This record gives sequence, C-alpha cells and structure tokens, in this order.
Amino acid sequence: MNAKVRLYVDHPLGEGQTVPLSREQAHYLFGVMRLGMGDGVALFNGRDGEWQAEVAEAGKRGGTLACTVQSAPLRLPPDLWLLFAPIKKTRTDFIVEKAAEMGAARILPVQTDHTNSERIRQDRLQAHAVEAAEQCGGTWVPEVADLTRLDRLLSDWPEDRQLMFCDEALAGGSSALPDAFAKTDPRPWAILIGPEGGFSEAERTRLAAMEQAHAVALGPRILRADTAAVAALTLWQRQLGDWG
Amino acid sequence: MNAKVRLYVDHPLGEGQTVPLSREQAHYLFGVMRLGMGDGVALFNGRDGEWQAEVAEAGKRGGTLACTVQSAPLRLPPDLWLLFAPIKKTRTDFIVEKAAEMGAARILPVQTDHTNSERIRQDRLQAHAVEAAEQCGGTWVPEVADLTRLDRLLSDWPEDRQLMFCDEALAGGSSALPDAFAKTDPRPWAILIGPEGGFSEAERTRLAAMEQAHAVALGPRILRADTAAVAALTLWQRQLGDWG
Repeated sequence: MNAKVRLYVDHPLGEGQTVPLSREQAHYLFGVMRLGMGDGVALFNGRDGEWQAEVAEAGKRGGTLACTVQSAPLRLPPDLWLLFAPIKKTRTDFIVEKAAEMGAARILPVQTDHTNSERIRQDRLQAHAVEAAEQCGGTWVPEVADLTRLDRLLSDWPEDRQLMFCDEALAGGSSALPDAFAKTDPRPWAILIGPEGGFSEAERTRLAAMEQAHAVALGPRILRADTAAVAALTLWQRQLGDWG
Repeated sequence: MNAKVRLYVDHPLGEGQTVPLSREQAHYLFGVMRLGMGDGVALFNGRDGEWQAEVAEAGKRGGTLACTVQSAPLRLPPDLWLLFAPIKKTRTDFIVEKAAEMGAARILPVQTDHTNSERIRQDRLQAHAVEAAEQCGGTWVPEVADLTRLDRLLSDWPEDRQLMFCDEALAGGSSALPDAFAKTDPRPWAILIGPEGGFSEAERTRLAAMEQAHAVALGPRILRADTAAVAALTLWQRQLGDWG
C-alpha cells in the first residue's frame, strides 16, 4: 500500500537514494503527522516521478528518508500557462492552488490596467502550488512567476503560443476554442483570466490584434476570477489537454 | 446606464412598484454604499427579472426604492442540482458561491458514509447563494436545501433525473457525458461531487446500479471538492447546459 503522506522535496530520487529533511519537513512528518522509524512517505521532486520512501532517521531538527521503489512515473502537465490578475489574498491563493490541481505548467500573476495589486508574495504563492501538488497526487509543481505587467508580456509574446482569453464582456458567447486546435496537435498555450474590473479598452484592442489570441466566453453569468480560472482550465483541458 | 449596486429582494417588482427596505438593506445601501435620494439600484427577486430602481426614501432603519424600468428578463438556470458533501467551512461556502455563479438551480448538501459534517448552517449558506447571485448578474437565486443523507436521497431518486457522478477513483478516465444527452433534449440533471474521503463501497455499488447515474472523471489529478464542483459544472454546462 502506498504511503498517505506525500511530500515535495528538492532532491534527487532513485533506488537506494537517501533524502535529508529540513527542519520544517522534520517537524511536519514527525511532529504533525506523527511518523516514526520505518513509516512510509511518498516523495516527488518534479523530475523523477513519485517514489515510496521510509523514515530512516527521525529527529526534532531533521531526519533522513530512504527511497524504496518508484510508485509513479513523472507526468508533465501540458505546456499551458495561466495568466491572472491578483485579487484579494484568499482568492489569489485559491487561484494558484486550483491552477496546480488543474494541471497548469506555469502560473503568471499579471498587472493589468485595472489591477489594484502592486506586488505579490511570490514565495507564499509558490508554497501554495507545492502544497496543492502534494495534495492532488501530481508529480510536478508549476512555477509561480513574479508579478509582470500584462502589456510587457504581450509585447514580447512567443509567436507559437496560443492564448485563450476570457472576456466577461462576451458573456453568453461561445465557450469553444477553434476546432483547428485538436488534441492531436499539441502546442504551447496560455489562458488569460480578466481582472475583476475587466480589461481596459487598450488591452482589448491589443488582444484583438494578436493572431494567437482566441476570445472565449464562460457562460451567460459573470464569474469571479477564481471561478473563471477553474472553468477556463476545465474547458481547455477537456478540449486540448490531458483530460480523457 | 445601469446601477452598480445589485440587490436581491423578496418583494414583487414591476412598473411603479415601491419596495420597502429592511434595516440590514438600508444599512448596506446608505451606510456602506453611501447611496442617497434618487441614486440607482438594480433589483431582482428570482421571479420578475432585473429592475432598475431609485432611492425614494432613505433612513437609518429603513427606506423605500421605486422601480423604474425592467433591465433584464427573468433567466432561469437549467434544471440542474448540485449535490456535495460539506467540508471545512470556507470551502463549503465557496462551493455554494460557485454553484450559484455557475448556474445550478438547487444546491443540496449531502451526508455520505465518509462525511464528517453532522450539520450545516443552512441560513448562512443560503445568504452566500444570494450574495453570489447579486454579484454575478443572475436574476435567480438557487435554493440551498438542508443537509440530507445521500442514501435517503438516492433511494427516493426521481426516475427522470439524470445524475452525473464524479468519482475520483476514475481519475484519468473519460470526462464526457454520454452523447445520447444532447442540448436539444433538456431534462432534469444533478451533479454529485464525491466527499474528500471518497465514496464508500456501498455508495459506489448503489450508484453503479442506478440507471440514471453516469460516472465521469475530472482529469488525471485528484481535485479538492470545491475545484471538482466548478470543473463538473463547467463540463455539464458546456455539454448540456446554457453555455454557448
């Protein structure tokens, strides 16, 4: 039976490999989860898949785990970015958590013309992505980028990366991506969720002029940004991604 | 231009109709939102569509709004129920909010074999549904039912109501509903989100034996219940509901 505790570690995993624990990890495993010598932990590092490991040393300030057997291969998410404008703290945390669960490869908080947020705590958001990956059984952790201005990102947008752009002004319109993009032809994509205050006219004009951009409606009601993120990721994963 | 403040009221709306305000509503409009005489408010009651109204009397403990013109017709959601097992407070609140935004007609918290929750605050959850409807521009508020045992609901399940049943044990399987259910043939449906601890074997057996039940996978990762609710509602609305 596989271990119930899953832990992300930044350390190579493999047969016979031992993994040293940080003070926080030791506190979590031995203090919070009450694991002891020989107990099992599932480990992943974003590169080597999932490995079963056993507690080989347990201390208050550290410890060691010993890998035994690989329990899942590395499974990379599709090459999908999620761009969103940070909102209130709890909802921003939720968006990052949900993007990791839903299988985004990279999470980019963006500053739009109508975004109030001047800065984010990138380290805190990255920790949320790690926790979500631990929880959802993923073998990969999406990278959370630093806050970037949307206009800067768009002016340097990769030519081959398509952009699904969710505009609440389209409420009630089509929620399908063009048929031309089939699952059999995977290419880089990004999803852009509009800010709570909507896009500015300048941003809308710019997006409309981009060949890679595809506007999509998320139903007839106006969704909050965190709801919109999950809904958009669902549509994309279902039509183009790794959902069966 | 339409009013920016939207308010649900339990009162008839129509041309020339006046609407008395409760103490809480007066506090919100005049204390929090700082509205004054003649300012506009958008009203809906779940029956008469959306109406523009003006402040006709403003007091500390009450006031009156006068309807002027209908700004949107009543738009009923599809006949879709969302069944879910209550979890931690914040996430339960989120599920109710998201179900309202995503256009569920009725929200039913259910007690499963692996649910820890013995009771819910139905009134608080209903208030969340109202707030979400105010926010998302809906003209309808889903009813939040009292906590019911899942086995009791299933043993008395309506013959003509289909059930989309999201089982994390299926992770990686198909996320499509049978083609037989087309948008052109709308019928009553329900979505059932599994509890965090998963369904029991007894529940799984019972669901498998129901002709109306259709198991659906929500991608290859394990989603938290609130993420799963939005993802399932998206799949359903896109394939069978009111999304374009």
